[in-house]
Amino acid sequence: MTKKQYLLTPGPAPIPEKIMKAMAKPIIHHRTPQYKDVVKTVNRDLKKIFKTKNNVLTLTSSGTGAMEASVINALSPGDTAIVVRGGKFGERFAEICSAYGVKVVAVDIEWGARPEPDMVEKVLRETPEAKAVFVQLCETSTATVYAVKDIGDIVKKTGAILITDAISGLGADEFKMDEWNVDIALGGSQKAFMIPPGLSFVALSDKARDLIKKSKLPRYYYDLGRYEKLVEKGDSPWTPAITLVIGLGEALSMIMDEGGIDNFIARHGRDAEFVRKSVVGMGLSLFSGFPSNAVTAVRVPDGIDATVLISALKEKGVTFAPGQAHTKGKILRIAHMGAITRKDLEFALGKLKETLEEL
Amino acid sequence: MTKKQYLLTPGPAPIPEKIMKAMAKPIIHHRTPQYKDVVKTVNRDLKKIFKTKNNVLTLTSSGTGAMEASVINALSPGDTAIVVRGGKFGERFAEICSAYGVKVVAVDIEWGARPEPDMVEKVLRETPEAKAVFVQLCETSTATVYAVKDIGDIVKKTGAILITDAISGLGADEFKMDEWNVDIALGGSQKAFMIPPGLSFVALSDKARDLIKKSKLPRYYYDLGRYEKLVEKGDSPWTPAITLVIGLGEALSMIMDEGGIDNFIARHGRDAEFVRKSVVGMGLSLFSGFPSNAVTAVRVPDGIDATVLISALKEKGVTFAPGQAHTKGKILRIAHMGAITRKDLEFALGKLKETLEEL
Repeated sequence: MTKKQYLLTPGPAPIPEKIMKAMAKPIIHHRTPQYKDVVKTVNRDLKKIFKTKNNVLTLTSSGTGAMEASVINALSPGDTAIVVRGGKFGERFAEICSAYGVKVVAVDIEWGARPEPDMVEKVLRETPEAKAVFVQLCETSTATVYAVKDIGDIVKKTGAILITDAISGLGADEFKMDEWNVDIALGGSQKAFMIPPGLSFVALSDKARDLIKKSKLPRYYYDLGRYEKLVEKGDSPWTPAITLVIGLGEALSMIMDEGGIDNFIARHGRDAEFVRKSVVGMGLSLFSGFPSNAVTAVRVPDGIDATVLISALKEKGVTFAPGQAHTKGKILRIAHMGAITRKDLEFALGKLKETLEEL
Repeated sequence: MTKKQYLLTPGPAPIPEKIMKAMAKPIIHHRTPQYKDVVKTVNRDLKKIFKTKNNVLTLTSSGTGAMEASVINALSPGDTAIVVRGGKFGERFAEICSAYGVKVVAVDIEWGARPEPDMVEKVLRETPEAKAVFVQLCETSTATVYAVKDIGDIVKKTGAILITDAISGLGADEFKMDEWNVDIALGGSQKAFMIPPGLSFVALSDKARDLIKKSKLPRYYYDLGRYEKLVEKGDSPWTPAITLVIGLGEALSMIMDEGGIDNFIARHGRDAEFVRKSVVGMGLSLFSGFPSNAVTAVRVPDGIDATVLISALKEKGVTFAPGQAHTKGKILRIAHMGAITRKDLEFALGKLKETLEEL
């Protein structure tokens, strides 16, 4: 027996035994009624997670594939997009836009801060030609949750659409696609969904669909129109990642059994609060001014290198994520999403305290 | 206990217990030495399968994603490409080229035939501006193996590159990327590789790399240059489909244990020959003039609807693939790839014979 490993990173996150077993069953063909029923159920349950009446499309790709799909389906070369850059994933949206000839008007904010709605409002007023506003729900690199609802209230009054990368936040942080006026919402499998990486999710509003009709960027694999035509039939344009979709079906049924998405999010809120209180109790400080319920970023004390701390913890079976870019060595990130339990967190935080004392 | 199901379709194909178990182990993070070692071993072993000195890049996508990657990395809008269209997957290459503004000069051949090298030579002579020639190794829709070696001999003398979709053929039909002068070779996970769908593979020659430098099509997720920079370090630009890559590592080690790729292909050749002889012995005829070792397409006798036959066999636990497009109802396709055993084939062919007699 190998010692239990505590993988507390914001993707991949641990996968429950029940889901692993579902994925390890003999594979079935994707053009069968049996598999199509799984896809239909997955779509039905994903709508509950996204809080939307729109279909949720499942793509075989990393989350970055869904981010790219949102850009190339909605926009045209020469279009202008407003991109909030408050961390690595905001930067990624800007990079994708630039790669496709979309002009980026960046709303640059300090890492760990969130975009204040009036900043977005001001930039939108100054950029009436903007076709889209890109934000994160949770900016994973800084563990910060953005006020997507407030931004939605502003964007809905304009001709622009609101594209929200909810990849790491979905299922952990509150999210209401329709009520918050989000036009394109993105998710990823390896987060609170409790399954391995390899799937991403996209849902489109009517306003997004109207813009898509005018989009002139070339696309084929990520042509969302092809997926939209098939999803209600339980079908997809290309061979899907069958076992991951089967696992997703199991995961969604577990979320529903936990009392549905609201209860699931509430549990994440309690666990996140527990982690925040615990680290503050150790004399540490939070990196983010608006901490997410999916992941907590913690500043390490002066004189301690987070990289050394993370390595020492790994020796003890506890894996935290390091900081990215300029935060590397200065912060560590503790995920509390999906199948990560309060007991796992208690154990990991105990080891963190112990190791900090040792260093 | 449910009855054993015989899934004899050209993707997904059955997955050995050993591989399912490897994929069901607790997930590990992809930025760890442990996972990076898997990626390095996978690259080393995939080179043996592709018979190439070039790195083999693993993408998180369906095979169609790799097809698209070959187009958007190598070509520019307005470029001309020669595309052999002898079935659904040749047509797909043409569609992808068209979607990206690449002019298609089609070499249209009858379904079940293969492109004769002199046809390709003639079209290349008449189209000196062609930047690429697209062919399949095995055209899955017709179960036909193409003479890629002979086509490579022709293309290498020109400025064009040879792009080969070896997705369904690789591991079953002979393939030698370097010796045959293939410039971009593509593979997919759910075929002879014995793992679920969700991964695709791309290898690039130096000639392809030179063309890629000049390519002006936009790309981000499928920007192969990003993958090339990281693969030798065991890394990838986006979060990979970790469990599928772990399964791939196990599958490649099983192929090596079977005596390596040549023995593996030889076994496929023997099983394919057995299937061909058996169906001909039943009085059926082969659909393809150049049958692949991955899959056999069989014409059903006049007066029998292949769709009815396939449904009746499914009731008995045997799943064959139907024909696609105009061959639907007229042929059935029997896969004999990867983990499909001689015993499975004997059972399935027995049921085929029995059901034909019943109908």
